[in-house]
Amino acid sequence: MVGVVAAGKTRVAGRSPIHLSTPELTAARALRYLSLLMSAESSVTTKPAVSMDSIVALAKRRGFIFQSSEIYGGFNGFFDYGPLGSELKKNIRDCWWNDMVHRREDVVGIETSIIMHPKVWEASGHVAGFSDPLVDCKVSKQRFRADQLFFSPVTVDGAIVGYVSALESEDTAAKLQAAAETFKRRKAIVGTLAPVTPKDFTEATPDQIPLIPSPGTAEPGSLTEARAFNMMFQTNVGAMTDGSSVAYLRPETAQGMFVDFKNVWDTGRVKLPFGIAQIGKSFRNEITPRYYIFRSREFEQMEMEYFIHEDADWSKCHQEWIEWCRQWLISVGLPASKLSLYAHKKEKLAFYSKGTTDIMFEYPFGVQELWGIAARGNYDLGQHALASGKPQEVFDETSKKKFVPHVIEPAVGVDRILLAVLCAGYAEEDVTDDKGNVEKRTVLRLSPRIAPVKVAVLPLVKNKEALVGRARALYKKLQRRYAVFFDDSGNIGKRYRRQDEIGTPWCITIDFETIEQPGDTFTLRERDSMAQRRITEVELFALLEEHVC
Amino acid sequence: MVGVVAAGKTRVAGRSPIHLSTPELTAARALRYLSLLMSAESSVTTKPAVSMDSIVALAKRRGFIFQSSEIYGGFNGFFDYGPLGSELKKNIRDCWWNDMVHRREDVVGIETSIIMHPKVWEASGHVAGFSDPLVDCKVSKQRFRADQLFFSPVTVDGAIVGYVSALESEDTAAKLQAAAETFKRRKAIVGTLAPVTPKDFTEATPDQIPLIPSPGTAEPGSLTEARAFNMMFQTNVGAMTDGSSVAYLRPETAQGMFVDFKNVWDTGRVKLPFGIAQIGKSFRNEITPRYYIFRSREFEQMEMEYFIHEDADWSKCHQEWIEWCRQWLISVGLPASKLSLYAHKKEKLAFYSKGTTDIMFEYPFGVQELWGIAARGNYDLGQHALASGKPQEVFDETSKKKFVPHVIEPAVGVDRILLAVLCAGYAEEDVTDDKGNVEKRTVLRLSPRIAPVKVAVLPLVKNKEALVGRARALYKKLQRRYAVFFDDSGNIGKRYRRQDEIGTPWCITIDFETIEQPGDTFTLRERDSMAQRRITEVELFALLEEHVC
Repeated sequence: MVGVVAAGKTRVAGRSPIHLSTPELTAARALRYLSLLMSAESSVTTKPAVSMDSIVALAKRRGFIFQSSEIYGGFNGFFDYGPLGSELKKNIRDCWWNDMVHRREDVVGIETSIIMHPKVWEASGHVAGFSDPLVDCKVSKQRFRADQLFFSPVTVDGAIVGYVSALESEDTAAKLQAAAETFKRRKAIVGTLAPVTPKDFTEATPDQIPLIPSPGTAEPGSLTEARAFNMMFQTNVGAMTDGSSVAYLRPETAQGMFVDFKNVWDTGRVKLPFGIAQIGKSFRNEITPRYYIFRSREFEQMEMEYFIHEDADWSKCHQEWIEWCRQWLISVGLPASKLSLYAHKKEKLAFYSKGTTDIMFEYPFGVQELWGIAARGNYDLGQHALASGKPQEVFDETSKKKFVPHVIEPAVGVDRILLAVLCAGYAEEDVTDDKGNVEKRTVLRLSPRIAPVKVAVLPLVKNKEALVGRARALYKKLQRRYAVFFDDSGNIGKRYRRQDEIGTPWCITIDFETIEQPGDTFTLRERDSMAQRRITEVELFALLEEHVC
Repeated sequence: MVGVVAAGKTRVAGRSPIHLSTPELTAARALRYLSLLMSAESSVTTKPAVSMDSIVALAKRRGFIFQSSEIYGGFNGFFDYGPLGSELKKNIRDCWWNDMVHRREDVVGIETSIIMHPKVWEASGHVAGFSDPLVDCKVSKQRFRADQLFFSPVTVDGAIVGYVSALESEDTAAKLQAAAETFKRRKAIVGTLAPVTPKDFTEATPDQIPLIPSPGTAEPGSLTEARAFNMMFQTNVGAMTDGSSVAYLRPETAQGMFVDFKNVWDTGRVKLPFGIAQIGKSFRNEITPRYYIFRSREFEQMEMEYFIHEDADWSKCHQEWIEWCRQWLISVGLPASKLSLYAHKKEKLAFYSKGTTDIMFEYPFGVQELWGIAARGNYDLGQHALASGKPQEVFDETSKKKFVPHVIEPAVGVDRILLAVLCAGYAEEDVTDDKGNVEKRTVLRLSPRIAPVKVAVLPLVKNKEALVGRARALYKKLQRRYAVFFDDSGNIGKRYRRQDEIGTPWCITIDFETIEQPGDTFTLRERDSMAQRRITEVELFALLEEHVC
């Protein structure tokens, strides 16, 4: 979505009812497996606060997420996913693709190139409008996003005696107030200090700019006016490096669906309403990447363009997609209590936009946008028709009309979902065993749908051949369909804890009862409740079939 | 792999035997499903020659592959995958990941960023050495790869009377010979013309260069000397656009595994020998992209670095991986008869290389490299240790030694495999029915492992509720696990043909016998043999479970 801001225009038309099914896996189902187990063996106290520091530390320690190029000091805004992180990420992608494409009859997939013809980005408005306001400090050579740089006059006895500034944080106003008090004290100004009135730098007048201190020097006089900084990464394609060869890394996958719309329409055996879905990398040259993997320069998107009749009830369709997306997030383990909806204000929408609602998630650093669901009219197809000279109209058999379809666009980032499930799933607990000993347990409550390892297979002891043999046979059989882990080192309690920390929903212990008693049963140990029960191989596969999908 | 060419050095040491299992799915198994069926209903004649034109046409017509940005005239070297192509591509990735990562205990996955710290590419040698020789035509402004621009003296009665040139093609020598004859005739030179002696432009002497005609103008005098052209795409990261912000799009995924080696070693619970695998996009600014998706500027790689003890029998390990990769290609449907091995000549290897063998595939445009398996010693980790100052040694518990591990690298492109399976699977046949009518059939013989649609569910008629209801119930059930297609339009023969053309291995027809006879059986119709037999739902799921994995 391009950051063009203009008055919103709403149009409601009633025709062609659209029926969407919500994902098969709802909250009820995704969480049902918790109640399968019979009894917890020890009492548990969960510590409440989850800090980003603990999540970052776990992600590093257990190989979920690394800084990119860490041996070279890292590279700001870029991240790598380790052995467990890459599995988690793949599972999020696969769940989305299965639910969005395979299990729906009205959505097809596509994979378009990251580097597209530069005219795509002229037509879409990104070359002209996809920018952040940037302000330079001429002395420190630092650069800041103008909308993240706040300032306030320092007002004493009704008169402005100077300015203070602060970079956006969770307590910007308090910081500005403290800075104002320091300013007054240092300058030995006598009188009553008024409360600060924070504004961001995009609102600074030409008179104010020379008076606002730079965060880089703490002195006024070095900040430039804000200017637009285009966030698309540029490169050159072909052997020339002049203007004719300029191309861009896509800042969103969505334009691929619009540019290929006619090809899909002509070859994909589709009819309205239908969607085109894509998963892939996008790139934005963020001035200030932040919040870990939440806002990075290279990230992965899952976007879908749902094309509807120009006379369709777009508002109903929009609402249904918002609910579908919310249910989907719940189905991969996000608690409904941490999700909320934010409807963008009409006056802040682009002129062509009919409405945008974001599904927000309560991260440790605040409530932030997770999934944006936009009703974009037929702006994008219309722009490409104009710029390419190739009509983007379709003939609708049912209504016998020719028109440019309208679109509903649910757009979400894989990395943001991954961070959300880590944040929601992470817990530190005090576990008291039968003997009253208290032990700390770190557990990652990931949904079985997306957990990197589905089952850990653990022979109780490693020096008993029959036991290890049975364990390996089960492991081999599971491996054909699931990501599983074999671990025979350390005591069984330690092995459970290792799996708890990486989010493995189930451990299977092959013990003496397995080989000595009839029935060929194993101990199933459940991650969240720590409850244990006997299970057969057939029951285990049925359990996985139900919950891992 | 960097194009540094130097004398090869071979070292064989015998220790730490390495055992690799070949993929579970071998040729025998992958093709077994063909013999499941009982009788073919019609006689078939396959036409022999497969042209690239027919494959490109099918890929466009059925939504496998589109030109990128087609409505803007396309963008040379970039391609999009449509609804069926994106499924096929995903299946190739998933099969590789399952076999390489999930079904092996000694390989873990990773996903590193496309844009890495620029020092990575200095250390790896790509900044200095990853280049193609480029020659400019000063008049036509065209650029050519010097090693693809061939020339020859025109020799008449033993004297050189001029030069001719031609761009590399399947019959370069013949083209040069024809050009020489034309040259002699036009200049009205009398005497006996000697056969041409083609050389590429990198071998041209400074005296010859001004005499060689440019392919852009057909006249000599405008070609420059060959110069090195770096194939990495450049961009700038951050708000500055000076030299300090230069970064590159990765030209291979492999360096991600080397740069993160220590992080994986420290967190991944791995021990030697073990591998790190990655699937992801890479970018190369090819001067002349060609052969459709075979050599494009944006492509997807599946690479694995298999780390071994410095004293391990690298040659044995190298051979085992070559065989593993060959078997894997057979398991996704490539015929062994179209695969061959090419061992790079020792004198052409980089100085650190112990050996490289390519698995070659017989494409319609020639036998070309598909999968390269390189024994790279410990060059890469050593280079990063030097450049970063971070030691890349490990302590091996078994041998009690500290050393930098050596590596075997199997590297393959998803797009090249996809093109290979299309080429190998495409056939046009004359099918003669019971009544002696001959009809043309286009069929794509894709392995069930990678076919975009596994099963098409077809109610025999669309106006019989019981029949359609049973079909939809089956469809819904299959959809939970497989990519399936529901089609109720057109006569059943036409529907079979549509599925044949997109490579669907099986069609299930719900017919009157299904609803009127006991047993709840369907007609299973097999793509390759066109044979039909009755099957129950349980048998169908067992069939899929065996062959789609």
